[in-house]
Amino acid sequence: MSTQTVQEAMITLGVNARRAAREIMRASGVAKVRALHAMADAVEANRGALKDANRQDLDAARENGLTAALLDRLALSDRTLDLMADGLRQVAALPDPVGSTGPTTVRPNGMRVAQMRVPLGVIGIIYESRPNVTIDAAALCLKSGNAAILRGGSEALRSNLALAAIVRQGLDAAGLPPHAVQVVDTTDRAAVGELITMTEHIDVIVPRGGKSLIQRISAEARVPVIKHLDGNCHVYIDAAADPEKAHAIAFNAKTYRYGVCGSMETLLVHAAVAAAILPRLADALIAHGVELRGCARTRDLVPAAKPATDADWAEEYLGPILAIRIVDSLDEAIDHIGRWGSGHTDAIVTENLGAARRFQREVDSSSVYVNLPTVFADGYEYGLGSEIGISTNRLHARGPVGLEGLTTYKWVLTGEGQLRG
Amino acid sequence: MSTQTVQEAMITLGVNARRAAREIMRASGVAKVRALHAMADAVEANRGALKDANRQDLDAARENGLTAALLDRLALSDRTLDLMADGLRQVAALPDPVGSTGPTTVRPNGMRVAQMRVPLGVIGIIYESRPNVTIDAAALCLKSGNAAILRGGSEALRSNLALAAIVRQGLDAAGLPPHAVQVVDTTDRAAVGELITMTEHIDVIVPRGGKSLIQRISAEARVPVIKHLDGNCHVYIDAAADPEKAHAIAFNAKTYRYGVCGSMETLLVHAAVAAAILPRLADALIAHGVELRGCARTRDLVPAAKPATDADWAEEYLGPILAIRIVDSLDEAIDHIGRWGSGHTDAIVTENLGAARRFQREVDSSSVYVNLPTVFADGYEYGLGSEIGISTNRLHARGPVGLEGLTTYKWVLTGEGQLRG
Repeated sequence: MSTQTVQEAMITLGVNARRAAREIMRASGVAKVRALHAMADAVEANRGALKDANRQDLDAARENGLTAALLDRLALSDRTLDLMADGLRQVAALPDPVGSTGPTTVRPNGMRVAQMRVPLGVIGIIYESRPNVTIDAAALCLKSGNAAILRGGSEALRSNLALAAIVRQGLDAAGLPPHAVQVVDTTDRAAVGELITMTEHIDVIVPRGGKSLIQRISAEARVPVIKHLDGNCHVYIDAAADPEKAHAIAFNAKTYRYGVCGSMETLLVHAAVAAAILPRLADALIAHGVELRGCARTRDLVPAAKPATDADWAEEYLGPILAIRIVDSLDEAIDHIGRWGSGHTDAIVTENLGAARRFQREVDSSSVYVNLPTVFADGYEYGLGSEIGISTNRLHARGPVGLEGLTTYKWVLTGEGQLRG
Repeated sequence: MSTQTVQEAMITLGVNARRAAREIMRASGVAKVRALHAMADAVEANRGALKDANRQDLDAARENGLTAALLDRLALSDRTLDLMADGLRQVAALPDPVGSTGPTTVRPNGMRVAQMRVPLGVIGIIYESRPNVTIDAAALCLKSGNAAILRGGSEALRSNLALAAIVRQGLDAAGLPPHAVQVVDTTDRAAVGELITMTEHIDVIVPRGGKSLIQRISAEARVPVIKHLDGNCHVYIDAAADPEKAHAIAFNAKTYRYGVCGSMETLLVHAAVAAAILPRLADALIAHGVELRGCARTRDLVPAAKPATDADWAEEYLGPILAIRIVDSLDEAIDHIGRWGSGHTDAIVTENLGAARRFQREVDSSSVYVNLPTVFADGYEYGLGSEIGISTNRLHARGPVGLEGLTTYKWVLTGEGQLRG
């Protein structure tokens, strides 16, 4: 397609999405639930067609020499399809955020003031190879009353279009507008450039993928972006930590899964308890295959640790490496996190109430834990039911973003003819 | 100053602001109140110096041929200074939003999940000639625990620097960091360009001024902008409206003040009540000096009205002009507002519960009223105590933005060593 044609095609998607958004924001909760259930049924009823489309993507990907890891992410297995249908039914069962109204205040003149939750409008989702995101994102956007424009990876186009047909079936079954969820059907890269700059048609962009994708989108977008950048997470073992808890929390924070954004990347240990805790913890981590990099005082206690540099304090390893630093006070720990952290998720291990409260108040991260490993950073664990991602933004939605993060509010005022002035 | 020097100067401001933000976000409510009271006292104690600095700005402005209206906005009278000191004490008395924690949920594993209100960080305020914004904005940013960088109009530079000295006195008196509030001391326009693109140092920009200023800033900013664009507000008189309320509300909505953003620009009237309500209302508005522009059916009832075109439905007059359209249903009114409105503030006049609820739910504006004139669009009227502006954004803060709009939240989780997986 020519750039001109891509632009026109994207504007058409945008105009259709905006029109559908006006309808879908008024849709009843019942209709949205019906649509989600119909989608789940359609996933199960169309396994064959979905796997056929996916097989074409997989064949082309193999010809193009994609790695085994990417092929694995691209594949729609029976198990993936089962999870997809389950996911749709789970989202259907979540409380509908739209239209709920918070506390009402009565002003001195008798008028009543409240805030009502309403959808954001049109959400653009840009993602990479996993086709299941098509269904996940469609479900969350629909449940929260938003229209969605989905732009998946080019290698998954046939799978995504087949899934889009499933979504369309669900919308039809519930009498909802077909353009409430649209999949971009071109692999032209110019389509992304249009999507992230169509401020008239798109209210927010949610990119899901690697850091380079998100940085590129953030740099070029004119539409607001709910984004996830670094997760350089810390666990601080305080002087008043329970040694057993500290050991278990730090071990879990590093080893639960190396690749998740809540994985601990730097361990801070108060000097008063370092000798009691670090050697045993280091042995356990090393035995688990974790490479340790420490400050000079750490290396006195853990000779196996390599020397850590400033680059280590800044790094999100997302792998079996851990930086360790001994600090002399809670303040030093908070300062280290303020200087080197990425504001994602940080934890203190302590039995001291004052230390816990100060850490929770003063560490400026989107999630701050007491006596919990940082790997709990996940919308399901927080009770959000589902999440579209974890935001490292400061404005709007911060940390795990569930349905509420895909809504905004409006002020609703009710009077009996009060006048001003 | 050379562009290079401006850039360096702005980065220095930014770095200082970020450092101050880390301190001010931990400051106690008591210290912030003390600082605000000290500023109020200093305004009163330094009337002479403030008026001297202001006189120099006024003299220069007169030489440069500024209009009487602009000179009026620039002037610091005794009354303006009184209001400034009062405003500081009022902001001091507002509840401190920082550190308050919302409802706590307990997860199945026993860990407790809550959200805590925290400052945004560093706020950049860009405004035009009124020097009192220097104090208003400083007070709101400080109370909400943010560091502020203020960039006023070049014609008010001496006044703003004198006010900055007052702010500094207040910060000093409370032991708060001097860089918590900084005033840009160059009139070089390149400073604004730096301010709105320093994403590392600034978390949000709040422009206060005319539409052209805000559009330029929005177009060029890389930092998120809490902005106020159009206020094309509607009142819809429903078939079930009380005629007296309808008359009073519509008249008040248009005539309270023509220049406020909540002023009614288009009146929609249900056909069933148009003949009973419009002629008398039109007479009253015309007698008050309002020019009417109507659809064909309106002009049948109000011959004095000029014909309205599509340009009228789209226009924010901010003056003594009103567009009027007769509609045949609630749906037509909602559709008109959806098509032509700016999503600011819209009102229905009705005694019918269903119509009121549908209007409030389905009109997608930041404020939706029942039986109230749109001119209540104001943070004080909503009970926010004070406001930094009215946001027409969808994300983060929508409608009047008080202290809470200058904060965000973080997740605080507390456990006793629960592990994952």
